[in-house]
Amino acid sequence: MHIKINDLLSMNERYRATLINSLAGYKTAVLIGTQSKTGQTNLCIFNSLIHLGANPALFGLIFRPKSEERDTLRSILETGYYTLNYVSSDLYKQAHQTSARYDNNQSEFAEVGLNEEYLPEFEAPFVQQAVVKIAMKLEEKIELKINGTSLVIGSIQDIIFDERTLSKDGFIDLTQLNTLGCIGLDAYFNSTLLSRLNYAKPGERTTEIDL
Amino acid sequence: MHIKINDLLSMNERYRATLINSLAGYKTAVLIGTQSKTGQTNLCIFNSLIHLGANPALFGLIFRPKSEERDTLRSILETGYYTLNYVSSDLYKQAHQTSARYDNNQSEFAEVGLNEEYLPEFEAPFVQQAVVKIAMKLEEKIELKINGTSLVIGSIQDIIFDERTLSKDGFIDLTQLNTLGCIGLDAYFNSTLLSRLNYAKPGERTTEIDL
Repeated sequence: MHIKINDLLSMNERYRATLINSLAGYKTAVLIGTQSKTGQTNLCIFNSLIHLGANPALFGLIFRPKSEERDTLRSILETGYYTLNYVSSDLYKQAHQTSARYDNNQSEFAEVGLNEEYLPEFEAPFVQQAVVKIAMKLEEKIELKINGTSLVIGSIQDIIFDERTLSKDGFIDLTQLNTLGCIGLDAYFNSTLLSRLNYAKPGERTTEIDL
Repeated sequence: MHIKINDLLSMNERYRATLINSLAGYKTAVLIGTQSKTGQTNLCIFNSLIHLGANPALFGLIFRPKSEERDTLRSILETGYYTLNYVSSDLYKQAHQTSARYDNNQSEFAEVGLNEEYLPEFEAPFVQQAVVKIAMKLEEKIELKINGTSLVIGSIQDIIFDERTLSKDGFIDLTQLNTLGCIGLDAYFNSTLLSRLNYAKPGERTTEIDL
């Protein structure tokens, strides 16, 4: 099948959104936890986590135009702090349900049945059931003029996870944690580790890292 | 295990890079095909594909600082065109091998044993063996001042894939294509579709999309 740009331009809007979102491929399903200045907690699933650098350790998130009107981005900008939570794949329905448009005074934690958990001196809530929990500090928000989306850059403050999944070289095996993955706006997948490969060099055969 | 920001700051650089890259989660392994002005083709694996919007259909890629010195980004900036290629997971060794630092006059296509394929009037090479092929046009390069990385934004021109994986609502099932996924810099995974879920609404039970 060959879809050309003119086909894209004339497509039904919802069909195109489903097509292009799924085409963007595998993502980790990330639950973003926030708390507003008035103390209202919020939890929402995102699929746009980006690695920007390890030193300093920076992750980015893409927000759609006008996301400031919605709870998650508003609380991030108000307080400067948020959490990233990865859940195991058996929680995929609860994770997806956080995408529903609850009222501002409703917390998705209670609504979908996930528990809040806190670190001392860090106001944003974690998901107690999460297998990986990351505390983030807002660094910068960059609006992309081309389509009005925003790139929100944050620095990693804390990482909490099961150390049995940590290799001696620093690799965290998300497949072993059964971490939920997502494709597009509504598809969820399980993963199985195939292999880790050694640093590739010209003219040498690719070899596997001994796990 | 609880890693704090001071632990991150004092970590061995390579250990930290492996940790933070793996923590960024699941990605699709994307082979970027380019052709320089002088006709030299190039192929390199990337794990930083980002969905930026469906109308216009925009994907982003993150490049490390000083990537202009390397073939892929230089050719993208020179010509304005590139391809994104997803391969099936049995090609993970060839895909990984494209990350080796070959000389400028060597084409990774030949070196790793993948074939070039072309569309009429589009100069960047596709991977003939790829299960999804996307023709991209450069729109903008934004340097992120915080750490010198670049966000390269391109618009989708053509999408070529097996139509048997296309649902009636526009969803492309990458798991059915056995598309190669990656975590961090050297880990590869297989995926299995768990479910697709209907649009979530407050107070209603999450239901599955009939596949």
